[in-house]
Amino acid sequence: MGRNSHVDESGAFVETFVLEAKGEGILSGLRFGAKDLIDIAGRKTSCGNPTWGDTHPEAAANAVCVDQLLWAAATCAGKTVTDELAFALNGENFFYGTPLNPKAPDRVPGGSSSGSASAVACGLVDFALGTDTGGSVRVPASNCGIFGYRPTHGAISVAGVNPLAPSFDTVGALAQSPEVLSRVGSVLVGCDIPSHVDVGTIYVMEDAFNIVDPDVREALLGPLRLIEELFPGRARTARLEDIVEEGAGRGLRNWYETYGAIQWAEIWSCLGSWVESVKPQFGPRIAMSFELVKNYDRKGLSEAVSRRERYYQALRKFLRPTDLLCLPTAPTLAPLKGALGLDRTKGDYYPRALSLTAVAGICRLPQVSLPLASVNGIPIGISLVAAHGCDGFLLALLQSTLSELGSGGG
Amino acid sequence: MGRNSHVDESGAFVETFVLEAKGEGILSGLRFGAKDLIDIAGRKTSCGNPTWGDTHPEAAANAVCVDQLLWAAATCAGKTVTDELAFALNGENFFYGTPLNPKAPDRVPGGSSSGSASAVACGLVDFALGTDTGGSVRVPASNCGIFGYRPTHGAISVAGVNPLAPSFDTVGALAQSPEVLSRVGSVLVGCDIPSHVDVGTIYVMEDAFNIVDPDVREALLGPLRLIEELFPGRARTARLEDIVEEGAGRGLRNWYETYGAIQWAEIWSCLGSWVESVKPQFGPRIAMSFELVKNYDRKGLSEAVSRRERYYQALRKFLRPTDLLCLPTAPTLAPLKGALGLDRTKGDYYPRALSLTAVAGICRLPQVSLPLASVNGIPIGISLVAAHGCDGFLLALLQSTLSELGSGGG
Repeated sequence: MGRNSHVDESGAFVETFVLEAKGEGILSGLRFGAKDLIDIAGRKTSCGNPTWGDTHPEAAANAVCVDQLLWAAATCAGKTVTDELAFALNGENFFYGTPLNPKAPDRVPGGSSSGSASAVACGLVDFALGTDTGGSVRVPASNCGIFGYRPTHGAISVAGVNPLAPSFDTVGALAQSPEVLSRVGSVLVGCDIPSHVDVGTIYVMEDAFNIVDPDVREALLGPLRLIEELFPGRARTARLEDIVEEGAGRGLRNWYETYGAIQWAEIWSCLGSWVESVKPQFGPRIAMSFELVKNYDRKGLSEAVSRRERYYQALRKFLRPTDLLCLPTAPTLAPLKGALGLDRTKGDYYPRALSLTAVAGICRLPQVSLPLASVNGIPIGISLVAAHGCDGFLLALLQSTLSELGSGGG
Repeated sequence: MGRNSHVDESGAFVETFVLEAKGEGILSGLRFGAKDLIDIAGRKTSCGNPTWGDTHPEAAANAVCVDQLLWAAATCAGKTVTDELAFALNGENFFYGTPLNPKAPDRVPGGSSSGSASAVACGLVDFALGTDTGGSVRVPASNCGIFGYRPTHGAISVAGVNPLAPSFDTVGALAQSPEVLSRVGSVLVGCDIPSHVDVGTIYVMEDAFNIVDPDVREALLGPLRLIEELFPGRARTARLEDIVEEGAGRGLRNWYETYGAIQWAEIWSCLGSWVESVKPQFGPRIAMSFELVKNYDRKGLSEAVSRRERYYQALRKFLRPTDLLCLPTAPTLAPLKGALGLDRTKGDYYPRALSLTAVAGICRLPQVSLPLASVNGIPIGISLVAAHGCDGFLLALLQSTLSELGSGGG
């Protein structure tokens, strides 16, 4: 692991280098890190697993998203640590370590875009590219107390980015400044950012708030009041179970199970051939996760796909282009290092976290996590979700009303 | 190429076998072929290039779309020929041959889902899976005189399907029966098919009809009259240049150039590492195409992404859930074998074909090609494009009003 030699004290980077900005653009002067799941020409993409790097050639080209940023005049500063194959929310990589969560050093940064979140939170770069399938940008943003953006599914090119579960895979970004994040998002999506936007209704999702830890729920009351101040008369309570007319009393269980069935099938269809033929060395947590997806019975897949489509269509009808959903980004504060155990089906962290992140995932909606709260100095995020394809609206909010919030709580 | 031993006289199959249906479902009794870009567990996916097969392991799992069909009680009959890496519209594979176009045996079936279209048109299977990035389901459907369906981008899982250009990649299907195609689509998308749908406005795209050959334009007058009979008072003429408020007088040139810039960058980001490290043996046509994408200057990528987003948003505002666009599927009759030459940038077939297919591609819209016309017995398709996410509506039309059309012209 000679490539590990440049890891600094944050542990955020797998490798540092400088890719110079090309041309002129709105990201001039900004430096970014790119998750080590995203190709950089002439270098190996390890995907957080040394065997992956050893069994794949150097990238011939940058991922499309990297070239978009370089041509908008940003500079790339290096590759950041990812959970193995992006298949975890922990941010604890068996081979590459646990990047520093500077606001809570005894806690995990969250994953799988762990190094990207850490590099931003430590102030080593202005922003970072991550990927988000089931929360891998949003959860680290919440854990580290920074802004995170997951786009509408398909809005940002994933060419040159290793797949995990393509129906949910997205390229997203993290930053301390909402204004910077907004500019980055606009470059990647190719959308204009209107200077002023009117907000319709902000639906505060009661059943989503009900599944988070009591201290998190308490801490998010402040941001909810702030949102009501910023957008007077716009917030009202609603329930996902009412919108999709299903699952009453189950919390967000249907969302989690639907997401999980499709994700597990897709992961094995994408990565199973490599796992079976190469028999890579995995860290113990990821080894267990791959056993789960390998043995997943696809009998329930059709029902999951049908439910996904129903939920997608229900939200499509419900959300107008100026409406927002408001929900917690994560169910708990950043877990203490080592606390999550090895088996993701044990304990309730993964089911609760994925329940929350599955709303945008299943409905293919854009989401931003805002670092507006903390518990004893430990950050926790709150999220706004916009309608499908309304990334420009959401990014405009970051650049206008929400830009005053700076890097927020924590 | 021992795997080639099962090719029958149609030349449609790379390999035949039987994967039994699982469970019960609405596809019971139906047999399908799957394009050899789509994983079948325990077998190699060649992607139409022997070196690809030689340098990749057997698939560990079925692609998700294959399992969805098996669990809906369909039977898989084999793997069908594809153009190399799915990177052509010809249907002439240097290694695996040119599958038979039974209605025009001296002409190409079209690609890249050439074997899937041929197997369906020859009556060897009830339907077939293909992939469609820039027309690879729709063009062969038009050439072979069968029905073809490209879904809303992201609506059907691409897990276990080799990528070409992920921003445009879709899994689609082909069938002789519109009713069968509708059922297959509903299984793959997971959507219900309403038994009755009302059609709003059908916009006949004048600037799209203007770029096709005169004999094709003439032949499509019949289907246009039929559409007016089936949906009285619904059809009206419109122009894409008016809807997107750009490119007046350029035909669909902006669409082609925008699609091409993003597609070429994505292809090299996805496949360049394999090409550079393995140096595979390519057929001469595909070798030339990969030289083009390798040398593509990404300077223009940002502008292309911005224009794509503007066009996507413009159509998003323009098309209501019950509206349709009507345009020719392809610019010419199926070309004579060998007539297209090796360099895709020479001649105007590729620019014109991709201009037409880019409308759904850029705007991420679902499209069906209907085999309603012919010139001297040679088939040509006409297409209907629905609003984003309205696959259920489009498939309902296939199952109701359009089902009477059977396998149509030719």
